[in-house]
Amino acid sequence: MNELHVASSARTELIDVTERVREAVSGCAGTLVTVFVPHTTAGVVVQAAGPGATAVAGDVAAALERVVDEDAPWEHVHEGDRNPWAHVRAALTASSVGIPLVDGELLLGEHQAIYLAEFDGPRGRTLLVTVT
Amino acid sequence: MNELHVASSARTELIDVTERVREAVSGCAGTLVTVFVPHTTAGVVVQAAGPGATAVAGDVAAALERVVDEDAPWEHVHEGDRNPWAHVRAALTASSVGIPLVDGELLLGEHQAIYLAEFDGPRGRTLLVTVT
Amino acid sequence: MNELHVASSARTELIDVTERVREAVSGCAGTLVTVFVPHTTAGVVVQAAGPGATAVAGDVAAALERVVDEDAPWEHVHEGDRNPWAHVRAALTASSVGIPLVDGELLLGEHQAIYLAEFDGPRGRTLLVTVT
Repeated sequence: MNELHVASSARTELIDVTERVREAVSGCAGTLVTVFVPHTTAGVVVQAAGPGATAVAGDVAAALERVVDEDAPWEHVHEGDRNPWAHVRAALTASSVGIPLVDGELLLGEHQAIYLAEFDGPRGRTLLVTVT
Repeated sequence: MNELHVASSARTELIDVTERVREAVSGCAGTLVTVFVPHTTAGVVVQAAGPGATAVAGDVAAALERVVDEDAPWEHVHEGDRNPWAHVRAALTASSVGIPLVDGELLLGEHQAIYLAEFDGPRGRTLLVTVT
Repeated sequence: MNELHVASSARTELIDVTERVREAVSGCAGTLVTVFVPHTTAGVVVQAAGPGATAVAGDVAAALERVVDEDAPWEHVHEGDRNPWAHVRAALTASSVGIPLVDGELLLGEHQAIYLAEFDGPRGRTLLVTVT
């Protein structure tokens, strides 16, 4: 198991971690890579790579802010917490993703990248990468 | 493979199953725990543990009810089914999650718990827990 | 690892791939099947099988179109891309799902089917099926 450390710099953003995951598993024996996010206000998303990827990542982050409206009767706010919407946005993405590993190489689609989806930054985050 | 049985008591709710999963995999050989939900109107969500967790779980459940509006032109209702929105809410969460297992112990983040997300309760539910 | 090829015929639709996955893994040694979608405008969803399944699949597809409104200030459109909403809909479903394999048989729930969720069709799609 590998731990990757990532620092987010905005409240809501997608951070490309593809090369970090690729290096962590390169040459490993096994056929499946699982990326797990040990946080409850962040998720993992497989989205666009290459030209246009930054715009897509921004669109996905902004759309999740629109889908989960902050102006709602949150229970958690009444308890003094400021980020219930971040928990919901994380629940709508994923806490883990499983990606094939073939001959020690991560098998993403040609246009895919792996992103940490930050919903309550900026802060330090961790990703746990397991090969089975 | 372990089967866990859970009874929900509300129409929409998140039920903490962390200790049940932890016990099911404790001491197992392997490096990955996969929790799968064999239902189409329920999902699995990794969310907050500890103080405030009940409020967060309620906020996530309530937010999913808001995001998927029941007042829409559902095909399924025309066929006599009463719960198309429950299927959509389940599709927006996840049917499975993969969590690292290290030295026979489930490696959740410090503030994480595993929840069955019920969208069409109350009823009996099953979770399938696999270690690889 | 098995590659399955699927052709979608609509812009947004859920395509039942259960039998294809079942055949691909039938008799395999291992305890977990992971279905991964190597695309960024398509996802994988476990949803209803049997009577009513087509209506549910249509409802899930239509609901995702409603949840992610196309009439929004997309960055990606400004760059000439026509489908930022398809990326967001894919991010709200899942890029992978892990399902138990018991004695060489896929262990879905009685009322479950596996769907490719197409959000930018029609086009040819691939699914990667891994057994661990």
